[in-house]
Amino acid sequence: MRIRAKVAYDGTDFFGFQRQADARTIQGEIETALERVFGERMTVTAAGRTDAGVHAIGQVIAFEVDWRHALDALTRSLNANLSDDVAVRELQVCDTDFHPRYAAVSRTYEYTAYSCDVRQPLWRRYAWQLEQAPNLALMNEAAQYLVGAHDFAAFGSAPSGREEETTVREVMRAEWRSAGDRLQFTIEANAFLFRMVRRIVTALVKVGQGRHHPDDVKEMLESKDAQRITGLAPASGLCLVAVKYRVQ
Amino acid sequence: MRIRAKVAYDGTDFFGFQRQADARTIQGEIETALERVFGERMTVTAAGRTDAGVHAIGQVIAFEVDWRHALDALTRSLNANLSDDVAVRELQVCDTDFHPRYAAVSRTYEYTAYSCDVRQPLWRRYAWQLEQAPNLALMNEAAQYLVGAHDFAAFGSAPSGREEETTVREVMRAEWRSAGDRLQFTIEANAFLFRMVRRIVTALVKVGQGRHHPDDVKEMLESKDAQRITGLAPASGLCLVAVKYRVQ
Repeated sequence: MRIRAKVAYDGTDFFGFQRQADARTIQGEIETALERVFGERMTVTAAGRTDAGVHAIGQVIAFEVDWRHALDALTRSLNANLSDDVAVRELQVCDTDFHPRYAAVSRTYEYTAYSCDVRQPLWRRYAWQLEQAPNLALMNEAAQYLVGAHDFAAFGSAPSGREEETTVREVMRAEWRSAGDRLQFTIEANAFLFRMVRRIVTALVKVGQGRHHPDDVKEMLESKDAQRITGLAPASGLCLVAVKYRVQ
Repeated sequence: MRIRAKVAYDGTDFFGFQRQADARTIQGEIETALERVFGERMTVTAAGRTDAGVHAIGQVIAFEVDWRHALDALTRSLNANLSDDVAVRELQVCDTDFHPRYAAVSRTYEYTAYSCDVRQPLWRRYAWQLEQAPNLALMNEAAQYLVGAHDFAAFGSAPSGREEETTVREVMRAEWRSAGDRLQFTIEANAFLFRMVRRIVTALVKVGQGRHHPDDVKEMLESKDAQRITGLAPASGLCLVAVKYRVQ
């Protein structure tokens, strides 16, 4: 049977999602837990391969197992075999051909930032510290140029090994809001290019700090030139919050 | 000159505030940073000695130094010499006899909890996971019995080495509110007994889960019997958020 699950993790101490021979990764951690429970090695597929340091509360994975008990018991078994910075939840039996990446119709990421002269130790793992407070209205004005189907070549590259792939993506939603002393950016798209969210955040924060005009973001997008955006917002602020599927 | 400062820390990887010979503590970390900046060893006094694992955003400290530059420069120097889980902020020159503990008129703590079947990796350092959702209204009903001046002997002991001290404390405010998927308890008192907040949280959560009646908390308080409260809410959920002084 094929099982689908949500995965949450604190990405701080992982070298990203994808399995690597000599580094601690979320995929490696989950496959090791499955091996402990089932006594055999199996491969997990995921909706997105988050980078090193990126978090998730709504990553989606799938794997094939032979399990004859309640799914609650499997949830407990797996979580007992996972370290405390990763957990699986909402396990359900899915179609045998369900693929978390190809079947996904959208992904939603959140990016968290805060502005303060002095770093905040309690937020250091989960937010980007800005030394200059950005203007939220300007950032949202610029963000609106990104909504819709566009060639996002200026904001990211196709996954490695697939350079021939299109860099057109459709953004359904892109907006900043203030949440207490923090700023939160939510972006939903059918899919994302490599480092696309962090490059978008970089450009929008510069707009918010008056170093770019909102219209510059439109021009960057139209240029399709990856050299136009310098700097990269830290991975710690980024979290994969949800993946949507046509057939739930 | 005497300097007063606010201190924020992620207590997870510290053995509490107070200096210990062979363990990493916040006081030890700050005194080491001061020694690096000033070339001599000095002692820091604090408003409260938080336990191992307890966090702070509003701890207050004071220390004597000879500094002839702007306080902003001292803030930067100290933070550059502190590890990323502790930071000092809002440095100001204070009276030569200012003592952060004795001069304080109140301390405010926040305790964060959440209820979920599966642990949340992103909250594990900062919140208590409850397996059964508590009733907020019942917890607040019980919390009101704690407001005012009472003998809190049932909820904590005087600091070690000072057993003769009174266990009467005055609670100005004690209330739970829901914050998104989390529950947050705020308690302000003139001072707290050893482990008092975590023992109060333990008792109130049991009320919220129907294992005690709200009136039981009144009875516990009146019993002055420390045996009445079993269990201890984890340190990870607790944060010292503010210390108030008569003369700011």
